[in-house]
Formats: sequence, C-alpha cells, structure tokens
Amino acid sequence: MNDPRASRFDLEPILLLGPGPASVSPRVLQAMAKPLLGYLDEDFRAMLAEESSWLRASFGTDNPVTFALSGTGMSGMEAVLANLLEPGDRAVVGVNGFFGERMVEVASRHGADVRRVDAEWGREIDPATLAAAAKEHRARVVAVVHAETSTGCLQPLVPIAEAVRSTEALLVADCVTSVGGAPIDLDRVGVDAVYAGSQKCLGAPPGLCPISFSARAMAVVRARKSRVSSWYHDVSLLERYYFADSPVYHHTPSNSLHYALLEALRSLHETEGLAAAFERHAANHRALVAGLEALGLKMLVPEGLRTPMLNSVVVPDGIDDAKVRARLRSKDRIEIGAGLGKLRGRVLRIGLMGHSSRFANVITVLSALAEALFEQGYRCSAGAAVEAAKAAD
Amino acid sequence: MNDPRASRFDLEPILLLGPGPASVSPRVLQAMAKPLLGYLDEDFRAMLAEESSWLRASFGTDNPVTFALSGTGMSGMEAVLANLLEPGDRAVVGVNGFFGERMVEVASRHGADVRRVDAEWGREIDPATLAAAAKEHRARVVAVVHAETSTGCLQPLVPIAEAVRSTEALLVADCVTSVGGAPIDLDRVGVDAVYAGSQKCLGAPPGLCPISFSARAMAVVRARKSRVSSWYHDVSLLERYYFADSPVYHHTPSNSLHYALLEALRSLHETEGLAAAFERHAANHRALVAGLEALGLKMLVPEGLRTPMLNSVVVPDGIDDAKVRARLRSKDRIEIGAGLGKLRGRVLRIGLMGHSSRFANVITVLSALAEALFEQGYRCSAGAAVEAAKAAD
Repeated sequence: MNDPRASRFDLEPILLLGPGPASVSPRVLQAMAKPLLGYLDEDFRAMLAEESSWLRASFGTDNPVTFALSGTGMSGMEAVLANLLEPGDRAVVGVNGFFGERMVEVASRHGADVRRVDAEWGREIDPATLAAAAKEHRARVVAVVHAETSTGCLQPLVPIAEAVRSTEALLVADCVTSVGGAPIDLDRVGVDAVYAGSQKCLGAPPGLCPISFSARAMAVVRARKSRVSSWYHDVSLLERYYFADSPVYHHTPSNSLHYALLEALRSLHETEGLAAAFERHAANHRALVAGLEALGLKMLVPEGLRTPMLNSVVVPDGIDDAKVRARLRSKDRIEIGAGLGKLRGRVLRIGLMGHSSRFANVITVLSALAEALFEQGYRCSAGAAVEAAKAAD
Repeated sequence: MNDPRASRFDLEPILLLGPGPASVSPRVLQAMAKPLLGYLDEDFRAMLAEESSWLRASFGTDNPVTFALSGTGMSGMEAVLANLLEPGDRAVVGVNGFFGERMVEVASRHGADVRRVDAEWGREIDPATLAAAAKEHRARVVAVVHAETSTGCLQPLVPIAEAVRSTEALLVADCVTSVGGAPIDLDRVGVDAVYAGSQKCLGAPPGLCPISFSARAMAVVRARKSRVSSWYHDVSLLERYYFADSPVYHHTPSNSLHYALLEALRSLHETEGLAAAFERHAANHRALVAGLEALGLKMLVPEGLRTPMLNSVVVPDGIDDAKVRARLRSKDRIEIGAGLGKLRGRVLRIGLMGHSSRFANVITVLSALAEALFEQGYRCSAGAAVEAAKAAD
C-alpha cells in the first residue's frame, strides 16, 4: 500500500512552469508548518481580515465582500455564478477558450438560460457583440475570462466593461490566472464579481479561491427569490462568518492554506510591491517570447493580446508534444503544460507565474525545450534562444 | 494593514481541544512544507492513489470511489446529497443535533422533498421510526449523523442500517467527526455513502473531505436524469480525474493538503494502527469523563451513546460558559468549544481528537477547567478530577 513512488518526490523538486500550480517560495511553504488555530479564534480572524485587505488591493477594489473561499478556482466560478443567477435567469458568456466553455456549463447547471458569444480560441471577444447579445437576451449576468489559461489570451476588460455598462447586466470576470500578475482594477474598470486562484501569480498553493462581489452584485444576491442551491457556496451565509462581528459557524476553513496565502500576499504587496510584480511578469514574458521566436516557434496568440503569465506556443509540424513534455519532466525536472480541450496536441503551455516567474527559469526552460525539440529532429539553437531572451530582458 | 495581532500566534501554539480542527502533529504539519507538484504529475497521482487506499481502510470499505474532495466536511455533505438526490426526490433525515438540521437544509436546497425524523438533541434516532418514515415517504435516501459534533452523541449505525435495509433507500452517514476515532465499517454495516473531515480524528488540517460511494450509490448517480447542479461536486466528473488511467482535468487539487492528509493517514495506519487509535480515543474519553464527573459535572449524552472524541458537558447553573472559554484561551492557551445552535450557553464541548487525544491533554484541560469554574464560585477540586482521570485511564 505504501507505494514507494509516492516518496520519490522528496529527492528533488519539480520546477513548475505549467498552467498552475506554480512553484511556491520556501517562505510561503514554511508558513503552512505553523500550528493550527480554531476557526473562531481571534488571531485567526485577524489573519483573515488582513488577508481580505490584501485581496482587495490585489483586485483593485474596496468591495467589503472580498475573501478567500474554501475551494479551488473552479469553486469560485461556481460560487459567483450560483449566487448571481437564479433558475431561468439569462446570462451571456464570452467563449474564446476552455474556461469560457466551463462557465457556460456551470451557469446552465444552475438553471440559467445561457447565450454564448464565441470568438476563435486565442482571440478576443468583441465587446460590441457581447453587449448586443446582453441587450437582446436581457441578461442579468455577462461573463468573460480575463486571462484564458487554455490559450494565453488576455481579454482587455476596459472595452468590455464600457460596452456592458450600456446594459442592465452585471459583469463577471474570471481572474484565476491574472490576479497578482496583471492589473485588474475592479472598481475603476467596473467589474461586479470576480473569482481568482491562489496557486498562480499570487504565489500560494492551490486550495483557496479569492472572490469579490461589488455592492451592486450583493444587491442582486440579497434580492434573490430562491435560495442558492449550493449551500457550501452561498455568499449570504459565508459573509456571516467572514465579516460579522459575532461570526456564525459555516464550515471550518483551512488554517494552513490561509497562513500560506497571507504570507504570499505579504510577500507580493509588502516585500515586492504589486506594480513591481506586474513588471516582473511582463519582463519575463517578453524574454520568453523572444527566446521562443528565436527557436523558430510561433505563439498561438497575437502580440498585444498575450497574457504575461501563460504562454501558448504552437507545436511545430512533426513534433510530438507529449514526448517533449515527458522529456522535460524526466530529464530536466520541469513541468510545462499540454494543450487543453481542442488545443490538445497543438500547443505547449509555458507558465511564468508567481514565484516561477523568474528570468533564470526562462533560460532553463528555453534551453531544455531546445534540446527536446532537437532530439525530435527540429533544427534550432538553444544558444540563440538564450541570447534573444537576454536581449529582451 | 499588517495587523500585529496576526503574527502573535507564532509565539506559542493553542492546544485545540474543541470541536475541530484538532491540533496536528509536527510530522503532518511539516509535510505541507514540501514543494508542489502538478495535478497530473505521476508522483502526485501515486500519492492520491495511496491516500485513497488508506481512506478505504479508514472507512472499512472496498468502494473504488473513495477519495478526498477539495473542500471541507461541509462540502462533502453537499457533494453526497447533491449527487444522490435529484429535484423532487424524497429523502428522510434523522435530526438529533445541529448537523442533522444542516442535512435537511442542504438536501432541500437541492430540490429534495425532505421528511425529518427528530429525536431530542443528544439522544439516538430510533431505527424503526426512521425506516417507517422511509417506507411511507418512499425515500431514495435516508441520512443520519454518525457522531453528532454538536452534542457528542454516537448514533449506532448497525440497527439503523438493518432497519433501512428493508426499504429501497440508500443510507448516508455523516462521519466527519467519527472517522479515525471510532469504527465505521462501511461495507459490513451497509452504508452507501459517507463523508468525513480531515481535521478531526484523522489528524490532518482542515480543507479536505474524504468521501466514499458504494457501487449501489454510484448506480443511482449514473442513472440520474438531470445533471448535478453543483459542477464542483459532481462525482461523475471527479472520478474521471481521480481514478481514470488518462485523468481528465477537473480542478487543481491542493497538493499541500494532500501531503498532510497522506502523512496523517500513514501515521494513523502504519505507525499507530487503526485499532490502537480507536482504543486511544476510547481510553482518553473514559479518563476525561471520570475527571469531569469528579468535578461534579454532568455529561449531556447518556453513557453508552457518547462519542469518544467529542464530549459535551453541561454548564452548571450560575456559570458563564463564555467566561470559562475565554479564561482557558487567554490564560491556559487551550481552545474548547461552545454549544452550537440550541445548546449555545448550555454545554461546553471538549474534543479529544486525533493528535489532541492524549492523556496529558486530559489532565491539562481538567485542571484548567477546574480553576476556571472555581473562579466563578463553583466548588470543585482539580486534584480529585486528576486522580479520577488517572484511575480511569
């Protein structure tokens, strides 16, 4: 029963350069080794309050209802859609990748009448088309993915918000991959509800999902006619634990994960600074792209629309992407991601997120990738890639 | 923003003797400081497989669909009920405490027609009444709480299962608090679906929820006419990640919590042994009860129905329970629990779970409790309580 393989990972870490989780700093990992506290303990509640204030700073919002849900990013998608939509409500979802598809699925499971506005995977959703669909469909909610982890496309939120403002709809954004790595500016842009992930650019392990609801979104929640079907995700119950002076037990949050997230947020905001973290993600992205292009590779997403933290590179003809990934994992101890959904086999996804977004990692992965491609007969020069990355840094 | 209170807990741990989380051993805490792995990494998947095999041993089942859900115990309640019940389905829930009430609430939110069978809080549900209600109501699901954390009542599962077997219903048991601390014997007893908690007798931090579905329960899931409204909790999707040879991405499980749970399970099964752990919980329970009775205190639950891991002791007349708890927290750095729901102010809940179930802790809490009561004018002798506990050990 005690599979010896299960202990093998103790020997040497894997460098996580895939779609997430990213590698986490020792400072954050060590925070989890601290002893637990009760869920009503005043020290633990003070930590949750501090965590929420850093999350507000990360999102660029003053929303009181901002906290980390006890689940992964996908639980946040469910929480936001399940709270804002009642059965029969109409929603419009922009779909330009795997996670847009997911939102359609999740919203429709909660009984919403969902209309989709599609764009090619890796291209942006057209704001005018989205707003027109919202008007015609009389949508309560319009939802888009900010950083599509399946493609590496960064959806510009400002034009979307401007277009949606002419409708009655609430704007929801999936910021799982963007938070901490690219500006969100929730309040200034005008986004009503957002969910994120702890395990990407925020630099914490997976397991918590930062979310935020605007006053306008909470008004919709409070005016619901039906109870939220998912008790675990009911934000009206959750806020009575997270924000009440006399907190009401709902569930038992994971101290250890909150210790880690708080330490990651302190590291991001106090030690580095949010603007510096954005610049770091952008600079390492530029270096990686320069290196990949020097290898003769092509990015899936056009310049100007690319996320700084997730880079989808097209698999060249004749190259077996699974072999490339397996070689990196076994020989170089690097994880990069496969294509997801309809991009399976067609792209490799290289993540530079949080603690993993470091120039040394750019060089490491370019060099390993060049060797792996070369082994399959692809002509390229690791040296040229490294030089190009250095020049772009 | 950096609230100084938030770091204060670094100074000295709190001994967690409440309703959970329990204190966790350094071995388990340290496991979380290990570097992360990708969710498709073969080493991580080997760990999940080992974890599932220990969970089967913990539940006493061969159910293939046994794994730790990415959420707390409450997410397991939701997952089990949401998967087994379709809107309009009939369910019968035994209610003899706070968590029975919760099951009524959660099942009805998922559209079930719920009939409740009540018993006094702290007394057992009558098996014949439960089975009669299931027959009359033509229930698809009958649900009971094994160890009611709000009262400390251990519902005997064998007579319940025998009675329910005469109906068509599936039997669901909430084993959040019992798993690892008292025998469950899922297969032998005949329970169809179960959910548990990582943070109590299993000895891990909160954040994961072990669940198990029998073949009969999975047949009901597979025969559903409607999709499970909660995508995050859909076991048909989850099993394609946890058990498929070519795993399909669903969400990103929390490596750190799984490292901790696996280490806790190895500690429970390999280092100590499950039977020895049951005996440890039983022995410390006996010692605590002997000590409490020597203090002149009364247990809420009659002998023979008491859970070994959670002890509800009646607050004597004239004693302010909040002051007792505050004194233990501030002076002795011990957390014990308040009464929940209708028992608020009427009982104190003392947990001896997992790593917290140690004879030294029994002595510590008896001594602190005696002093706290004495301060409020209650006549008792700490020495007598300690002697009684030692004699019962």
